Amino acid sequence: MSLNFCFLGAGNLATHLSKSLKEKGFNIIQVYSKTNKSAKTLADVLNSDYTTSPAKITINADVYFVALKDAVFDEVLSKINLENKLVVHCSGSLPVSVLSAYSDKTGVFYPLQTFSKQRDVDFHKIPVFVEANSEEIQNKLIQIAEKISDSVTVLESAKRKYLHIAAVFACNFVNHFYTISAEILKTKDIPFEVLQPLILETALKVQEIEPEKAQTGPAVRFDENIISDHLNEIKDLKNYAELYNSISKSIFEHHQNLK
Amino acid sequence: MSLNFCFLGAGNLATHLSKSLKEKGFNIIQVYSKTNKSAKTLADVLNSDYTTSPAKITINADVYFVALKDAVFDEVLSKINLENKLVVHCSGSLPVSVLSAYSDKTGVFYPLQTFSKQRDVDFHKIPVFVEANSEEIQNKLIQIAEKISDSVTVLESAKRKYLHIAAVFACNFVNHFYTISAEILKTKDIPFEVLQPLILETALKVQEIEPEKAQTGPAVRFDENIISDHLNEIKDLKNYAELYNSISKSIFEHHQNLK
Repeated sequence: MSLNFCFLGAGNLATHLSKSLKEKGFNIIQVYSKTNKSAKTLADVLNSDYTTSPAKITINADVYFVALKDAVFDEVLSKINLENKLVVHCSGSLPVSVLSAYSDKTGVFYPLQTFSKQRDVDFHKIPVFVEANSEEIQNKLIQIAEKISDSVTVLESAKRKYLHIAAVFACNFVNHFYTISAEILKTKDIPFEVLQPLILETALKVQEIEPEKAQTGPAVRFDENIISDHLNEIKDLKNYAELYNSISKSIFEHHQNLK
Repeated sequence: MSLNFCFLGAGNLATHLSKSLKEKGFNIIQVYSKTNKSAKTLADVLNSDYTTSPAKITINADVYFVALKDAVFDEVLSKINLENKLVVHCSGSLPVSVLSAYSDKTGVFYPLQTFSKQRDVDFHKIPVFVEANSEEIQNKLIQIAEKISDSVTVLESAKRKYLHIAAVFACNFVNHFYTISAEILKTKDIPFEVLQPLILETALKVQEIEPEKAQTGPAVRFDENIISDHLNEIKDLKNYAELYNSISKSIFEHHQNLK
């Protein structure tokens, strides 16, 4: 499969995905990003061309990976002649149909992971969800995805959106709770490091046990003294008492319903 | 150090802590629990005596570990003659002073971890926070703690409470969000397993990177289209849209303030 790829976007996802594809022997011929620094940084790693101008995006690629914020899709895609090109976006929440205005060969390639530039990830372990507007394109995307991931699934747009919402809770909101806990510790000069083993064990548990069976803490025990004491302590810390209260209620109600 | 221990409580914490102490050569002579099954199960593992009656709790131990729900402390402790005995509780949020009515040798031994009966944990990696009402007792607790943990810190009650609040966010609330994400996936028949690599990576990231620097997702990008679309999808699913909205706002505000 000798395919030429163009990456539209040079953020965390684009960086990890393009590097992984290149390692598997695919050619990345160009990177587009709005900012010169991002475009050049990724192009250097990939040994590819780069541009910051939508009008100068190559017409010689076979596959265009769109890893842009959805608000700027049209601004970029409308400037390229994508006739007969395979155009693929990487968004969890957008349907494949958002690309139909630009090409008749469209697809989705959604790796379910959180990417940071500072951390390498093993792409083989990342579940990739694909979708396309034809079976031919779908098979092509499966072939590409299977080169870099051990877990490739075809999933329609409506379901993929739920996957994305679940990921927002399980990753983005979870990370914000790590941030809040760091902030709470900081008020008493306690280093965040003391929480790291707890955070890791909490994530390791649900690799084996269903999360609702792994629930611990004052809310699931309905330990009212502790809860009201905690609420009182953090009452002046942003809206954290409000969050504490509504999540504790949610935990309690969930586990009441299980009984 | 040939000390005899009695465990009051046979829950997850008591189970892991007593097993770990026994492995290091301490004698656990008795376990008390309200329920026969819990008391017997742990006593069998420890090869110790057990009772379900506070009046039959041994007076021959040197150290009494209180791993009970705080609401029942008095009900149990008031029935034992604890004169000259070292009485230690394991609670994150209760001050050491709650024990002063029962003994003049009191302390706290707080291992910062989430314990489940189904999972073994390596106690050496668990940070233990100790406190006592005298330096002599404090040193004794440090000695005991250092036998089982590589990370032992003296921490006063007021600060330990903040550690507990931070742990509620970083572990209990986090686990509830894993539960919510599993529930969201279930509505579309998607197995929870697909989220496991993401959950693990999210926890691994903050072993290296400060959590606020690891934040990803629609809220930190302020991707309004995605956010309002997600809110609309889950509007009938319990109070999850409300939680989604308030946490997204909290993420956005936190990161606005960093700029």
